[in-house]
Amino acid sequence: MSTVPERLAALRAAMKKAGADICVVPTSDFHGSENIGDYFKCREYITGFTGSAGTAVISADEADLWVDGRYFLQGEAQLKGSGIRLRRMGAEGVPTLAEYLKSKAGRDVTIAFDGRIVSASLGETAEKEFRGKGGRILWDRDLVGEIWEERPAFSCEPAYSIKEELCGESRISKLSRVREKIAALGGDRMLFTSLVEIAWILNIRGNDSAFCPVVLSFLSVSAKDAVLFIQEEAVSDALRAELSADGITLMPYMSFYEYTAALPGGEKILYDKTKTSCAVLRSLPKGTVPIGVHSPAALMKAIKNETEQANIRKAHIADGVAVTRFLYWVRHTVGKQPVTEISAAEKLEEFKRMDSRYLGPSFETISAYGPHAAITHYNPTPETDIPLEPRGFLLVDNGSQYPEGTTDITRTIALGETTRKEKEYFTRVLRGNLKLADARFLHGCTGQTLDILAREPLWEVGADYRHGTGHGVGYLLAVHERPNRISWSAPSGDAYPWVFEEGMLTSDEPGIYFENEFGIRHENLMLCRKDEKNEFGQFMRFETVTMVPFDLDAVLPEMMTEKERKLLNDYHRKVYETISPFLEGDEKEWLKEATRPI
Amino acid sequence: MSTVPERLAALRAAMKKAGADICVVPTSDFHGSENIGDYFKCREYITGFTGSAGTAVISADEADLWVDGRYFLQGEAQLKGSGIRLRRMGAEGVPTLAEYLKSKAGRDVTIAFDGRIVSASLGETAEKEFRGKGGRILWDRDLVGEIWEERPAFSCEPAYSIKEELCGESRISKLSRVREKIAALGGDRMLFTSLVEIAWILNIRGNDSAFCPVVLSFLSVSAKDAVLFIQEEAVSDALRAELSADGITLMPYMSFYEYTAALPGGEKILYDKTKTSCAVLRSLPKGTVPIGVHSPAALMKAIKNETEQANIRKAHIADGVAVTRFLYWVRHTVGKQPVTEISAAEKLEEFKRMDSRYLGPSFETISAYGPHAAITHYNPTPETDIPLEPRGFLLVDNGSQYPEGTTDITRTIALGETTRKEKEYFTRVLRGNLKLADARFLHGCTGQTLDILAREPLWEVGADYRHGTGHGVGYLLAVHERPNRISWSAPSGDAYPWVFEEGMLTSDEPGIYFENEFGIRHENLMLCRKDEKNEFGQFMRFETVTMVPFDLDAVLPEMMTEKERKLLNDYHRKVYETISPFLEGDEKEWLKEATRPI
Repeated sequence: MSTVPERLAALRAAMKKAGADICVVPTSDFHGSENIGDYFKCREYITGFTGSAGTAVISADEADLWVDGRYFLQGEAQLKGSGIRLRRMGAEGVPTLAEYLKSKAGRDVTIAFDGRIVSASLGETAEKEFRGKGGRILWDRDLVGEIWEERPAFSCEPAYSIKEELCGESRISKLSRVREKIAALGGDRMLFTSLVEIAWILNIRGNDSAFCPVVLSFLSVSAKDAVLFIQEEAVSDALRAELSADGITLMPYMSFYEYTAALPGGEKILYDKTKTSCAVLRSLPKGTVPIGVHSPAALMKAIKNETEQANIRKAHIADGVAVTRFLYWVRHTVGKQPVTEISAAEKLEEFKRMDSRYLGPSFETISAYGPHAAITHYNPTPETDIPLEPRGFLLVDNGSQYPEGTTDITRTIALGETTRKEKEYFTRVLRGNLKLADARFLHGCTGQTLDILAREPLWEVGADYRHGTGHGVGYLLAVHERPNRISWSAPSGDAYPWVFEEGMLTSDEPGIYFENEFGIRHENLMLCRKDEKNEFGQFMRFETVTMVPFDLDAVLPEMMTEKERKLLNDYHRKVYETISPFLEGDEKEWLKEATRPI
Repeated sequence: MSTVPERLAALRAAMKKAGADICVVPTSDFHGSENIGDYFKCREYITGFTGSAGTAVISADEADLWVDGRYFLQGEAQLKGSGIRLRRMGAEGVPTLAEYLKSKAGRDVTIAFDGRIVSASLGETAEKEFRGKGGRILWDRDLVGEIWEERPAFSCEPAYSIKEELCGESRISKLSRVREKIAALGGDRMLFTSLVEIAWILNIRGNDSAFCPVVLSFLSVSAKDAVLFIQEEAVSDALRAELSADGITLMPYMSFYEYTAALPGGEKILYDKTKTSCAVLRSLPKGTVPIGVHSPAALMKAIKNETEQANIRKAHIADGVAVTRFLYWVRHTVGKQPVTEISAAEKLEEFKRMDSRYLGPSFETISAYGPHAAITHYNPTPETDIPLEPRGFLLVDNGSQYPEGTTDITRTIALGETTRKEKEYFTRVLRGNLKLADARFLHGCTGQTLDILAREPLWEVGADYRHGTGHGVGYLLAVHERPNRISWSAPSGDAYPWVFEEGMLTSDEPGIYFENEFGIRHENLMLCRKDEKNEFGQFMRFETVTMVPFDLDAVLPEMMTEKERKLLNDYHRKVYETISPFLEGDEKEWLKEATRPI
């Protein structure tokens, strides 16, 4: 296998041949997905950095990789010796990608990228800075792909349809609501390019992404037609017949770009302004009227219906049983038998698989012991794997796919003795988690207002975590979904508005990370519910659906107010009531003790 | 004096003559000021509504007034019998002003207004909806002015300059910083139309507004010149010489519109996109390049320098002494001698005037007893004035102008027995006030994130107040100033960004209002200060500058956490230390008792 410096050399040769001075390699597929199939992992191939996000920019004499706060430590480690400079997004003095490109632009400077994986906004930056200054843009050069030895093929797993008892609404009904929204937004047609949106609208799932059960596809919807672009081999005759009966025409996946290029003039064509690639936009013929919108399917999908809400509770019981059994096992095994970060994660997977409904992980499990947990998105590899010892914290962030929904949980487990500092911060982070989960707020609020409830116990002692407090979660789809979000930083001007609506599923995951010391995160998922409506307005609150105890061995009750202790005790009582019927013997005994009131 | 129906009839006759179908009358002067001089009170003249904000729209068969939540009750009372419909902004089912105008627009429909008092954005709405649909716009018709019998003249009080020991920075230095910002924003010139900004830049004050010591003026600044448009009679020879020595040219106030119409082509002219009137924008000749920005002076002015901060603390001691003496007086007088809402406010003014530095109120004092306090911006009039009785709450919201700064305080005073409900909500609102004042947060935070700290004790029981939690306060200028603000509702897309910076002065004023029962508000002013800077970032916090006790007789200590009680006790200890040296005898004794630890 070639090394990163060899790959960079090959890319630079290809760039020279193509006449490109700068090559931009974002982390994306043709759909703006968070989890991309192996075919699309160009940025990983060219940098060696395995994180889920980041953009590389290569020129003849420079190579840079922009990563966000989650990946500062991992990026530093993985780029060592590569000759690629790590650009820490948001850190003081670090130029943004756009600023960097701006500084490189000039007369006769040529920038190249694969427009199918480049966002419209990055395309606009290139247009403005490069074309605007007399440079050139190569819009359709997949240069990394050209030099990639043994590049994997597209994934082409079978697609399947999910029944109304699981998703609560037929595709006919969803298509009808989508069409209403398209009309309300002034469109004749909408091009859906987001895999999770297409899966949601059509009630189909597949396996073309590692953690998200989607099908590689595009969807074009007008008042009169609905055309699904999908690999023929992925569709069984039965599914084909079912889709056809619901009025959906099938066309080959890669014919989408020819299709968009041939759309009739005069059509008002909606596209998602934050997710659609510049290749799709550029393909639209003159005479059509492209209109950038926030995809209505994103919000519709985020609001889980009653069936989905009931199923989500069921999925979290299955998940809670498995994680609780793992907690029992890890606390009773470490110090007696050899356990490592990886073998612990494998054991958790074993507990999950005992439930026949378990479909697989919703993201790569983080199993991080001691200082490793301070690397926010650390995933153990055979090279980094370390044995677990009966002291300090093991942080496990894990999620599952069930037919009844997607889960995401983080627990920080005291494997034995913990220090005063570890306990203090464990308690502070827990207080934040509990206070946010207990929030009651007026409809109209966004997570920008709620965030401080989780962060306050840390801010009051001058500490912080460099990530958002919560993200939306899909239904048997992606573990990170728009638009709901909890974060004190203002959304970018173009972001989807993120007012909390009833039925939204959101994570509550404050943390704290001390480099080379330890890391803590407490994560539950919460459904947003309507509360009282009175003269002051419609109040909203959360219902926590994750059912796993927090580790009382690391809690300092004297650091909590009476109300906070009550919140913890109420949660633990509910965990016991919900999970204990599925446990027996020692495990059940232990859960009783682990959920005792403090 | 004519009645409102008579005035409406006269206006409709004038509209008919002018060929206008719809007449829009906002509440503004030529400067987008909050407090407008008597000359500018067209909306009050035509509707009879005396509130400080609201927009009237009159057509042949309809008359409507849009008011915000502060004025729902007052608007209802004052519009009774006028034939004008109250439009409650933000209430369910109420169209916005823009939506209403949109519904009225059509071919051959003519809308009229005085463009000098109409914002650029309202002008754009008119342009789009009326001109866009084949209607007409009369941009420069002051129709209410035309029918206004005995309209007052422009105010023309003497302007004066303030010394560097009070304001901490010379006008030469301010002009130089302003010019840097103009260049950084890509402008050749900026047209300053905001009276508070001009007063701040030039270190001048006057008395052309009831509560804000500004001078009617416009200011045009380029790298080479600075032209002040001001009424000649307002400027003494000495001030003229002083301004001239600092390179400022004087021109007559009303020649501004001719001046802007004659600006040379090619100039890039900055204007404040949220405050500049459409008349100014429309006056700019073809060939100039208007650029809408957030006025840099607004942010510069909001960040008080060290001199101003030190002075602000002094002003709040003077103010605190007067308000504390008033508290003593009102609590010991009501029930023994006749006191009414108005006579109480007059007595407070008397205490203020005992300090020779007192310049006057910064807004009309709210002195509201019992149910009157539920009318958020109630000002007592001889018709509404009621006697104070030794029970329930008197709410007093009052502010002053001192050479050392502007104050704004609200205290809710238990005049005797209070009910359990009154005490509970008094305590909840107080907890919110204390928690917000104690906030510690990362630099970059806006008041959208901090707001919930004050609101949470109410939201948790399904209650709320329909106003923001905090507003910026000027320095010997307006009591409401941009851009700092504390509110959970998202700013409009065009609003000035409102990140907290060191030196900003902001109010902390949660409340609760139960119609026909009682109202409570607790308001202090806080300076934003830098706190610790560490690996997590720059932390910020607040320093409360208002020094007046909260009424312990209405506090339920058992409803407060230990930490909240400590916050209250710490504040009260500081109030006693700061204020008691200026008191003697019974007043001092009483303050000791009023600030006792609970």
